[in-house]
Amino acid sequence: MAELRIPAELADSAALRVMARCDALAEISATPGELTRVYLSPEHLRANQRVGDWMRAVGMRVWQDEVGNLCGRYEGLQPELPAILLGSHLDTVRNAGRYDGMLGVLTAIEAVHYLHQHRLRLPMAIEVIGFADEEGTRFGIALLGSRGIAGTWPADWLERRDAGGISVGQALRQAGLDPKHIGRAKRDKAAFSAYLELHIEQGPILENAGLALGVVSAINGARRLNCRFDGEAGHAGTVPMAHRKDALNTAARWMARVNGIVAAHGPDMVATVGSLQCLPGAVNVIPGEVRLTLDVRGPDDRALAALLTSLLGCADDIAGQHDCVFSAEEFYRIDATPCDERLRSLLAHSVRKVQGASPVLTSGAGHDAIALAPCWPVGMLFVRCDRGISHHPDEAVTTPDVAAAIRAYLEAVLALAQAQR
Amino acid sequence: MAELRIPAELADSAALRVMARCDALAEISATPGELTRVYLSPEHLRANQRVGDWMRAVGMRVWQDEVGNLCGRYEGLQPELPAILLGSHLDTVRNAGRYDGMLGVLTAIEAVHYLHQHRLRLPMAIEVIGFADEEGTRFGIALLGSRGIAGTWPADWLERRDAGGISVGQALRQAGLDPKHIGRAKRDKAAFSAYLELHIEQGPILENAGLALGVVSAINGARRLNCRFDGEAGHAGTVPMAHRKDALNTAARWMARVNGIVAAHGPDMVATVGSLQCLPGAVNVIPGEVRLTLDVRGPDDRALAALLTSLLGCADDIAGQHDCVFSAEEFYRIDATPCDERLRSLLAHSVRKVQGASPVLTSGAGHDAIALAPCWPVGMLFVRCDRGISHHPDEAVTTPDVAAAIRAYLEAVLALAQAQR
Repeated sequence: MAELRIPAELADSAALRVMARCDALAEISATPGELTRVYLSPEHLRANQRVGDWMRAVGMRVWQDEVGNLCGRYEGLQPELPAILLGSHLDTVRNAGRYDGMLGVLTAIEAVHYLHQHRLRLPMAIEVIGFADEEGTRFGIALLGSRGIAGTWPADWLERRDAGGISVGQALRQAGLDPKHIGRAKRDKAAFSAYLELHIEQGPILENAGLALGVVSAINGARRLNCRFDGEAGHAGTVPMAHRKDALNTAARWMARVNGIVAAHGPDMVATVGSLQCLPGAVNVIPGEVRLTLDVRGPDDRALAALLTSLLGCADDIAGQHDCVFSAEEFYRIDATPCDERLRSLLAHSVRKVQGASPVLTSGAGHDAIALAPCWPVGMLFVRCDRGISHHPDEAVTTPDVAAAIRAYLEAVLALAQAQR
Repeated sequence: MAELRIPAELADSAALRVMARCDALAEISATPGELTRVYLSPEHLRANQRVGDWMRAVGMRVWQDEVGNLCGRYEGLQPELPAILLGSHLDTVRNAGRYDGMLGVLTAIEAVHYLHQHRLRLPMAIEVIGFADEEGTRFGIALLGSRGIAGTWPADWLERRDAGGISVGQALRQAGLDPKHIGRAKRDKAAFSAYLELHIEQGPILENAGLALGVVSAINGARRLNCRFDGEAGHAGTVPMAHRKDALNTAARWMARVNGIVAAHGPDMVATVGSLQCLPGAVNVIPGEVRLTLDVRGPDDRALAALLTSLLGCADDIAGQHDCVFSAEEFYRIDATPCDERLRSLLAHSVRKVQGASPVLTSGAGHDAIALAPCWPVGMLFVRCDRGISHHPDEAVTTPDVAAAIRAYLEAVLALAQAQR
């Protein structure tokens, strides 16, 4: 394989440091024995302080911005050039794993560590951001950190309340921030040339391919719908099979078709019926009504719309064939975020240098890159994780995989700096 | 059509009386505005009194037995002959219809009314029983009245408690009955020659056939099972379709096959998945576990066992094909009750006289005849009801149908008396 600028020994020690720091951050939690660190909590601010210390140790200027993002800047030789932005998030879901988010922030610091250690300056600055809220655990609204940087907070977000009744505005004040100044977190388009994020895959594709790294082509768009099959409840003993309007049996006939329809629409798309209620729901009563949720995701919004049309059309047909009525209502939608072509090929080149092959994946989960993509080109590097598990204490990566990731990530950053010089 | 012994005008006035009495009994309820009358409640005892008055008015000796059944006897000419037993039940489900049970008791009284009106005595006595508990609404155990007559109360029934903590024994005492004497309700095998019950169909078959009456071939046996599909929960966005172990999707593939399997096993059987829980049950999580209930019923126990074997085998196969595990546990079983051949043909003969055709039905719901069948031959006559609705305030029959039923029922009683003389 081609020569990489970061030697294997340096990457190995960097990976050990990243793993130890992931462990250290996992101790900064609201709940002893598990990891829960939500936006603007005391734990969040403590994690910002700790990560800020690590940034300062590699020669970065560090500040916390007006929405709580932790920012560090390693200056370049030409102050007028837009900086390269690296990062991920420092908040977690409840009872979380220790790598989702944190791994991306800590490997970004390792890129700076390499430059600082070798007394190198790039032409442009590198900024690393530990985003304040990606998961949306506390307020039920996600990407608050990266949307603060993009300047796309909706007007009503300050009024959103957590389960304890505390609003975002109050939480900002409790964290020593001024809600009046959240607009100041917004960064100019000219501030950055690109955003690169490293993240665990949260899926099984790399593990099944036997590879540590992959390049993300797009972050999937998603649609969520509440669906309903209406039939007619009846006595399970006295209504013959041919006379039934069984809402559950009809819904089942449709659900049994879902995977085939998804497959017919091409790869990279998924559809899930995740919850289902059956009414009245008694052992001896034919179900008269079924309510279920449908979640569809894919990297291309037009293909996703076509898939949804097929799925709903099939549900309509099957309901009609079995004397039931189908209805559906979309309650959530997020468009797909394609990754920047140039950053993709640059990352792919670096990944090929590290592991020979460079698989291309779509991201089924959301990331800060979604919020940044309207302002700056985004690129994402995925790292293999154990059995695809995430949002769970069993979330795991290996130190050799992290070392490989650091090599590819740094290589990509250096190549990007070179290309932009 | 053949000559019937009861003239149409008499049947019409009898039907009007029965309809008015169903309305009157519907007023004897625990809940104003709806009909709820459970075993040994003050309402139950009041209904017994009212129906007892109607029995006395047609020359019957009336008593309430040791488990609360209302019994009336119209003596025959030869006291040594076993009596013909007629009846149905006077208890209801909650928010019930007014015909389920009551119609059978009141038409039985009309048979005696006809004899009394014409100063006729049969060779044998006629007994009419308004059974005290068929529905099992209060104590969760059913057929207490008819099982009292058959002498098949299990030892622990006196200890069973209602939702208010009152035991069957206490309820008997509160109703002025002595729990020590429940065994006295049992009747000798020699006491009766046959049991004939008239009941609403509780299904749509007669209505769809355009006929008022049908003869029951058997009361279906039933099996109820708790079933489970175990798969693996996962992220609805990141786990590709081909890697999923989706418990709900797998359960759906099986449910979609249920009707076809039932049809392949022949007519008269039904299978119902009436309740389903999907875990964890979130819009963005692939279901890892599905719990559902399966209710299968049919008139023949061996055919039912074969159907169940096919259904469970299919579930096992489909689970295996989709990396899930299927398991099932039976929690309720009642054997099928075939009706007596001789009583069936006698009822069919009478029904043909009334309406030309005599459709044969199985009963999907349970009846007092189940409890009596081990002791005496049982026969059942079904009356068409509106849209098959029962256990609901919308339960309805027409007066002409009730007149036809009275004619066929009385004809059958007279034919039976003649055959046994």
